[in-house]
Amino acid sequence: MFKQWEILSAGSSLDLDAFLSNIIVNEDGLIPAIAQQHDTGEVLMMAWMNEKSIRETLSTKQVCYWSRSRQTYWRKGESSGHQQKLIAMRADCDGDALLLLVDQKGPACHTNRRSCFFYEANETVVSVLNDVDSGL
Amino acid sequence: MFKQWEILSAGSSLDLDAFLSNIIVNEDGLIPAIAQQHDTGEVLMMAWMNEKSIRETLSTKQVCYWSRSRQTYWRKGESSGHQQKLIAMRADCDGDALLLLVDQKGPACHTNRRSCFFYEANETVVSVLNDVDSGL
Repeated sequence: MFKQWEILSAGSSLDLDAFLSNIIVNEDGLIPAIAQQHDTGEVLMMAWMNEKSIRETLSTKQVCYWSRSRQTYWRKGESSGHQQKLIAMRADCDGDALLLLVDQKGPACHTNRRSCFFYEANETVVSVLNDVDSGL
Repeated sequence: MFKQWEILSAGSSLDLDAFLSNIIVNEDGLIPAIAQQHDTGEVLMMAWMNEKSIRETLSTKQVCYWSRSRQTYWRKGESSGHQQKLIAMRADCDGDALLLLVDQKGPACHTNRRSCFFYEANETVVSVLNDVDSGL
């Protein structure tokens, strides 16, 4: 279906159920979801969603992932207080990745860094970019 | 190792080989890579890399993915001319995702849209955000 949909003009609409039944998920029913701070453009983290967490996120406007390590729903910030409010949810051309524009409260990373992407690689070494923020 | 590395201070360095031997790849040896336009912050696409394509990208500064559909290396722009020049490569806290800051020539998407993320979902419908750009 994505091959047919890609020529649609801006402003065209598709039914959410039809759309979700065509997205590409892995063998565990999961699709990668990138969280980006909506106003600064900072990419905060990448995690995984299933259909139920996508629907919950769209209806509650609070981001819910599927935790692969804990094998359970992960309502971001439920224990840490560092919630992600959903501003917009997008999907890509072939329906195998999601982009969440969010308003991130505090750090997104479990290390207390704002973004999870704090390692920077070059041809020989990887440098740590940011310190853990001890206070908040 | 990522558990030990996460407390390192900003400016610390790790050996690239040690780092790459600890990243988390799926059963096909692949890790998701997000491409973001380095100056505007726009998230352009998500694709997959393996260790060889990571090393090639770091050394040539032209982004090389692994194409899952074609089962071959995918030097972005090789046929379309829409190359991605690598500005920086980052990895996340648990080593299971990459963020590529790039300078994207022309559209990133095979549909000739600048970004692949042109579907926007709400609770009931999915809207198409951008038209295909016929000229370039």
